[in-house]
Amino acid sequence: MTILEMADALRAKRISSLELTNETLAAIARENPRLNAFITVTADAARARASAMDAELSHGIDRGPLHGIPIAHKDLVYTKGIRTTGGSKIFENFVPDHDADIAINLEKAGAVLVGKTNLHEFAYGITSTNPHFGAVCNPWDTERIPGGSSGGSGAAVAAGILPFATGTDTGGSIRIPASFCGVTGLKPTFGLISKRGVMPLGWTMDHMGPITKTVRDAAVSLHAMSGLSTGYVPPKNVDIHGLRVGLPVNYYFEKLDLEVAESVRKAVQTAAAFGARIVDIKVPDIDALNVVGRMLLLAEATSVHRDNLLRRRADIGADVVTLLDQGRLIRASDYVDAQRLRRIYIREFSKLWTQVDCIFTPTTPTPAPKIGQVTMQVGTQQEDVRLATTRLMRAINVLGVPALSIPCGFTKGGLPIGLQILGAPRAEDTILRVGAAIEDAIGVVGRKP
Amino acid sequence: MTILEMADALRAKRISSLELTNETLAAIARENPRLNAFITVTADAARARASAMDAELSHGIDRGPLHGIPIAHKDLVYTKGIRTTGGSKIFENFVPDHDADIAINLEKAGAVLVGKTNLHEFAYGITSTNPHFGAVCNPWDTERIPGGSSGGSGAAVAAGILPFATGTDTGGSIRIPASFCGVTGLKPTFGLISKRGVMPLGWTMDHMGPITKTVRDAAVSLHAMSGLSTGYVPPKNVDIHGLRVGLPVNYYFEKLDLEVAESVRKAVQTAAAFGARIVDIKVPDIDALNVVGRMLLLAEATSVHRDNLLRRRADIGADVVTLLDQGRLIRASDYVDAQRLRRIYIREFSKLWTQVDCIFTPTTPTPAPKIGQVTMQVGTQQEDVRLATTRLMRAINVLGVPALSIPCGFTKGGLPIGLQILGAPRAEDTILRVGAAIEDAIGVVGRKP
Repeated sequence: MTILEMADALRAKRISSLELTNETLAAIARENPRLNAFITVTADAARARASAMDAELSHGIDRGPLHGIPIAHKDLVYTKGIRTTGGSKIFENFVPDHDADIAINLEKAGAVLVGKTNLHEFAYGITSTNPHFGAVCNPWDTERIPGGSSGGSGAAVAAGILPFATGTDTGGSIRIPASFCGVTGLKPTFGLISKRGVMPLGWTMDHMGPITKTVRDAAVSLHAMSGLSTGYVPPKNVDIHGLRVGLPVNYYFEKLDLEVAESVRKAVQTAAAFGARIVDIKVPDIDALNVVGRMLLLAEATSVHRDNLLRRRADIGADVVTLLDQGRLIRASDYVDAQRLRRIYIREFSKLWTQVDCIFTPTTPTPAPKIGQVTMQVGTQQEDVRLATTRLMRAINVLGVPALSIPCGFTKGGLPIGLQILGAPRAEDTILRVGAAIEDAIGVVGRKP
Repeated sequence: MTILEMADALRAKRISSLELTNETLAAIARENPRLNAFITVTADAARARASAMDAELSHGIDRGPLHGIPIAHKDLVYTKGIRTTGGSKIFENFVPDHDADIAINLEKAGAVLVGKTNLHEFAYGITSTNPHFGAVCNPWDTERIPGGSSGGSGAAVAAGILPFATGTDTGGSIRIPASFCGVTGLKPTFGLISKRGVMPLGWTMDHMGPITKTVRDAAVSLHAMSGLSTGYVPPKNVDIHGLRVGLPVNYYFEKLDLEVAESVRKAVQTAAAFGARIVDIKVPDIDALNVVGRMLLLAEATSVHRDNLLRRRADIGADVVTLLDQGRLIRASDYVDAQRLRRIYIREFSKLWTQVDCIFTPTTPTPAPKIGQVTMQVGTQQEDVRLATTRLMRAINVLGVPALSIPCGFTKGGLPIGLQILGAPRAEDTILRVGAAIEDAIGVVGRKP
């Protein structure tokens, strides 16, 4: 069930929050041994909270669509009294004394926290093959990665354990799991959702956002995470007539898995069939933006974790140690150059919004690779898994524009394929609208692992 | 004459803009050989412009207080068709193809540009002892520095050549010349005045602002530089009853020249005598903020000038080369740390604005040192001239709050002493108001070198 279906069922008294919560806890008990999606499960607190939410509803107190809905937080989000590991051995017993703003906002919205999801260590990677809490597995094929860093959130939602888990996205960490797991991931405009109380990675590129089953669920989750009591949710039979959909003639459709390219182009045709106007566009130098993003992230992540690196090197995974070491070699003047270049590209990219209302691209160039895989076949070439997987992601974090990933098809082998929809700053409503239209038309959401 | 006096005289037809401009050009011819305040004089263009401004006034077109007033730009400000050296040999023949925003704004306000003022090379220093265009001399004692980097602007206004010249301030470059030359310097809130078309030095700390003879002239110049047609100008008999003046009990009154301390304390007493409420305050760790500011500036300036350093090392002064070299050694992760620390201090400092409306401090711990002097006596200690002179300055650029420097007295030796008035972000009106009250009461503006 989606959030909105659960919300209806709760209000029609067809089910209670406690029943939903018990079902969720049972699903975790059943699925987690093979998925490793959760680091911590808060069963007792969740049941108590669910009962309290049931009592409120029965007394006419209605906090909105998330009232009584089971959710999980990526284990990077501070939760008062509940350990928050950041996927790190160093923080395996760290219990925050306060909640992150998004935890406060979701509690106000009535959500029932059932646990904390597994992730790539420090959110610094895309595999979620966590050396301390175990590799998260993809529900569609447990030999494959779910993507990361919000891999546990993606796997939990894809497996149908719960309808919504929070994620963070510094270089694709919400959208990549959404793509690999066949769910919906929304990285909103930079700064739209408060980051207070979330373990940072790259402070000028970190974003909070929801991972959900559907686009409409992403909309209600976005509003709740932002602390808003309401906001735009795409209606039934959403209308996209005349909407200008940008289709990049450069970069985004180069070096792709053929099935990915085909699925995304079908989504473009679907948009056209529903009345959208497809506009060929030329995007600025995305490779340069990726370089800028990598340089900024190396420096910023090392600033965050330098003390961990110096004092607890042996307790950090080899891949993360390598990145943190690399970050020490970046010069400050090069970092400043990168920030200045960033401003130039932001200005250049923003000109596209006079031509189009949104842009369609693939989310990842391939479906999910296998756990432990270092290089993979992308179209006709072998590529590094991390570089290929972040290739269509990282620039968007540098620009700070909103981006939605929704499933748009499956490979013959049965793996999900992601469509990325980019929008202008603060144009979340537009990408949610077109995303809902595509979701309704393509109808892949019902498919289950 | 001040801007406002000239404006009255122009409208009363007691003088024309052409006459004012000719007098200014004559003063430059007379004073510049001993002061070195100007790098470029635009005599013909200025006379043509003055005549055009006279014609407008006689036809009833009135652009406001700066209409027909002779001004100069610091030679860091791009002026279309007029060479802009940045005080550097590398740019000695550089002629911009566009105007800086502040040049456009002041032209719209009717100002008559008579030339470009000398400065510390690249604005990267506080002496204005320029190795390529000659040392700027202090009009009060030509063996002494005028301060910098906007030294030419400070000296030109102090010598009575013109009532207003533009300045830039990355670590005191407006306020230090104001203090050493006995004139008024205003560094507004970060971002208030556009920096487009001004050669950068430290992009997160660069500010544009006016150097004028009086506080009221600073107010009208601020508005014109900002592109506003009008704004607050302190009235006659300005009222400061009940205004809360913060007096730091730590840091700002330590390690001072005795005469400076005495003059500034007298200014505080003057404010109290006019009805202001003096409130003892404790400021956050200003030394830490200075360290943050130095690290940020080293990295940012090297980002700006790295290519000049690599390609034209021999054409850059030794002091600037040393700083640019040092900037290459800063690590990006340390730079990011400094920016993160900055945010913490900004938050901490902002709490002071619930207790007070403005803060009084000395501008510089000493009066102007001699040209070539490397260390100097400050109170009971010997200090490095640059470090001592920026000690009460740099943190303010890191914080981005507005700061006004006005003369508040003279040493027995006849050198000016500066009072710095800090305000909350965007509270320029408040510091201009209290500044005008002190200026009226102390009455040192009339004193001439």
